[in-house]
Amino acid sequence: MFAIFVFDPPSLAARFFTDELLAELRRHVEIDPGLVLTRYAGPELARAEILITGWGAPPLDARALAAAPRLRYVVHTAGTVKGLAGPEVFARGVQVSSQAAANAVPVAEYTLAMILLANKQVWQLSRAYTADRRPPGLETILSAGGNAGRTVGVIGASAVGRRLLELLRPFDLRTLLYDPTLATAEGLGAELVELPELMARGDVVTVHAPALPETRHLVGAAELALMRPGATLINTARPSLVDQDALARAVADGRIHAVLDVIEPDDALFDLPGVLLTPHLAGSTGTELHRLAAGAVAEVAAVAAGRPLRHAVDPATLHLRA
Amino acid sequence: MFAIFVFDPPSLAARFFTDELLAELRRHVEIDPGLVLTRYAGPELARAEILITGWGAPPLDARALAAAPRLRYVVHTAGTVKGLAGPEVFARGVQVSSQAAANAVPVAEYTLAMILLANKQVWQLSRAYTADRRPPGLETILSAGGNAGRTVGVIGASAVGRRLLELLRPFDLRTLLYDPTLATAEGLGAELVELPELMARGDVVTVHAPALPETRHLVGAAELALMRPGATLINTARPSLVDQDALARAVADGRIHAVLDVIEPDDALFDLPGVLLTPHLAGSTGTELHRLAAGAVAEVAAVAAGRPLRHAVDPATLHLRA
Repeated sequence: MFAIFVFDPPSLAARFFTDELLAELRRHVEIDPGLVLTRYAGPELARAEILITGWGAPPLDARALAAAPRLRYVVHTAGTVKGLAGPEVFARGVQVSSQAAANAVPVAEYTLAMILLANKQVWQLSRAYTADRRPPGLETILSAGGNAGRTVGVIGASAVGRRLLELLRPFDLRTLLYDPTLATAEGLGAELVELPELMARGDVVTVHAPALPETRHLVGAAELALMRPGATLINTARPSLVDQDALARAVADGRIHAVLDVIEPDDALFDLPGVLLTPHLAGSTGTELHRLAAGAVAEVAAVAAGRPLRHAVDPATLHLRA
Repeated sequence: MFAIFVFDPPSLAARFFTDELLAELRRHVEIDPGLVLTRYAGPELARAEILITGWGAPPLDARALAAAPRLRYVVHTAGTVKGLAGPEVFARGVQVSSQAAANAVPVAEYTLAMILLANKQVWQLSRAYTADRRPPGLETILSAGGNAGRTVGVIGASAVGRRLLELLRPFDLRTLLYDPTLATAEGLGAELVELPELMARGDVVTVHAPALPETRHLVGAAELALMRPGATLINTARPSLVDQDALARAVADGRIHAVLDVIEPDDALFDLPGVLLTPHLAGSTGTELHRLAAGAVAEVAAVAAGRPLRHAVDPATLHLRA
């Protein structure tokens, strides 16, 4: 089978696929690692049965599909295929694979780390220590929450939410889950609750829901007002899920804290000592990119051997996903 | 049996023992929660069969032992009993219990969180983002190490080191262990190596050895020089284990990073962007103090029922422990 890379900038292909992964890939399909498309054009596309896509790959629209008459598989090296593969792709019978599960791993790991630190107010006390150049008093340190018997609220049983619930099992933490698409949290190791209860009980609340029109400001002023004093909101998903202005007000009041890996640009957030900002890095970085590429190679190997995709995207649930 | 609290300041007793824990304690022994000794004196001491000790409890020297002729158990609510119970105590046949295992839990959890963040350079990129008020470039973020297939070096199979190795199992991280008192790391889930190999291979190196004369500057200039560029040293144990001047030089050079929960006071560390300082909070705080108290209550319940201590300190290994 003939496969082509689609990344923009094209240099991303080499960042994802190490020499070892390229060698493995070439054991299964014909591919030119030096050929990385940034749009769906060129004579090679007419031969392609597999597109190995990644960040920056443009939408596979009707015109693109017409230029790729032999296309059977889109093997995506990132999480979301929204904006890449719509109904037209599935209608043509093209199968789409996503690395959402592999990309969920680093996001869940980042979130776990931030939960463990937030419950002990580690970054707040570290900031105070560094600013004052002397440690806060023992009383302040001993008052810092702790991770024994506290409660974590997980919004969304997405790939990240589920992986996070797995990672939380070895800890002495109660877990609550809100997900309106679930009737039961059986097997997920969490107590399924409504959103207001989750907001009111969580020492940490972390958002892992898909960004959809109906989830815009899912965590709004009313939900934030329910949070426990000193609790922490974590958002690694999409900015639209949280009413950022309401959040900034609640943090400025000193009522709650926030750890935000995704924001709408707003300089005011940088001035709030109760906000820890990270520059959208919870997803895959460094060697975690090779994990995504390895997952894509495994998908290519599967279809080249006549086996089904392991991480096929179901078009019926596409509208519910991040 | 009659038990007495020994804490200094006495207010610590109420911070550790919630009303529920006091009620549980009083189901097993006679104790006056309002009586908290700060030194070994007073008529009540002559009756005490159990001392429930904690931070600030002075050494149980010959004079203290003479004032407590009925003493049979010292149930300590903290990790180390060094400086509290020496050979004289054991020679008198007094049994000593420590909450080292329970206190290891938060330290291991803090360390796990810092490992997961260090491998992605989360706090470094967060600092840069906050200082610049704009995100670092995508190239910088994508270059940030990641937690896939990286290597963690654990120095010391102490209670913390062992708990950390357990916590590290669900992650895609190789673990190395250096502990000169072990002949094998069988069952610990780590590769037992010599210290130079651990220093040279670890993307993160974390120190969990006891502070002893022979472990002073265990991680010295020579060991630090072996570390991989961009690697992170974590110390939650004791400052003396690391040559702090050599560490400051290596971090100032930009070669390595450090996460330090324990330091010898040195203002220069506050000026190094490659150092993350926390004010000695990795141990038990908040609800984690109640976990220690609950552990002590369980020990008291055991001996009151004629069962053996579950966390008895072995005087033969006392000199090897933190």
